[in-house]
Amino acid sequence: MSQQLYLIRHGIAVDRGLYEKDEDRPLTEKGQKKTTKVAKQIDEVGITFDIILTSPFVRATQTAAILQEAGLSKTLESFSPLAPGGDIQAWLDWWNNWQQETSPHQGSVALVGHEPDLGNWAELLVWGSIQEKLIIKKAGIIGLNCPDNYSPLGTSKLFLLTPPKWFLKE
Amino acid sequence: MSQQLYLIRHGIAVDRGLYEKDEDRPLTEKGQKKTTKVAKQIDEVGITFDIILTSPFVRATQTAAILQEAGLSKTLESFSPLAPGGDIQAWLDWWNNWQQETSPHQGSVALVGHEPDLGNWAELLVWGSIQEKLIIKKAGIIGLNCPDNYSPLGTSKLFLLTPPKWFLKE
Repeated sequence: MSQQLYLIRHGIAVDRGLYEKDEDRPLTEKGQKKTTKVAKQIDEVGITFDIILTSPFVRATQTAAILQEAGLSKTLESFSPLAPGGDIQAWLDWWNNWQQETSPHQGSVALVGHEPDLGNWAELLVWGSIQEKLIIKKAGIIGLNCPDNYSPLGTSKLFLLTPPKWFLKE
Repeated sequence: MSQQLYLIRHGIAVDRGLYEKDEDRPLTEKGQKKTTKVAKQIDEVGITFDIILTSPFVRATQTAAILQEAGLSKTLESFSPLAPGGDIQAWLDWWNNWQQETSPHQGSVALVGHEPDLGNWAELLVWGSIQEKLIIKKAGIIGLNCPDNYSPLGTSKLFLLTPPKWFLKE
């Protein structure tokens, strides 16, 4: 058995410079529409999440809210280690607790965050080291199968990496 | 600049045992239909290939023919190193020649073959070693950006890994 972990990058946000703080930048209208399409299509694939954890940055929380509004998850929590530069160890601790609480381990967790962190985390989980070899577009999705009886670090498998261009049928 | 390399696994084939030789196993009807849908959707994404190289095994040549019939490539060639257990070095030699012949290097090449070879090749191209961490479903697609001025071995980047379930909008 394994658990599925989805890493989802926030949608297109307004340019830097328009907001004093980077963390306040919201999604553009185009970003909202595209993210909504992605959310609807995740729903059509038949995927739901037990929980969505999101970076507290506005462009991420908006992305996560769109996923929740599409009916993909009842639970949505802000998780500060998903902010840019966050420490994967804090998430590994969360994951460890999550696994102890959920039994049997057949869940599905979504993380909404930023690049290059999401790609780095995915590489750490799958290959155990960061090489920056994954290209993740805005509103793009990574899917990992994580083992449920031991650490997912370096032991997970990659089953999905798709930019909206390939995922959405226009 | 970089070149795009797509690694496409053959569609669903008839069971082992029904044919004396594994290499003779054709796609099932379901496999043909699903592969045709995948081909149509690759076309809708706006992708074309300069050339498709395929394993000489029947289930792969049929898959490649479906891609070609969808208008994705004018050129289709059988390439024996894509058979199960084939040597990536033979393909690297081909790639080297291909790059010398095509200029500027802005092409797109598709390889149709088998698991675990395709996943192994992708890992060698991206991370330089085989760890069997990629899950590639039948008629699934991997997309790599390969550098055009030096060997793609360990220097390519992964931008796409999608099973039909996520790629096709049913």
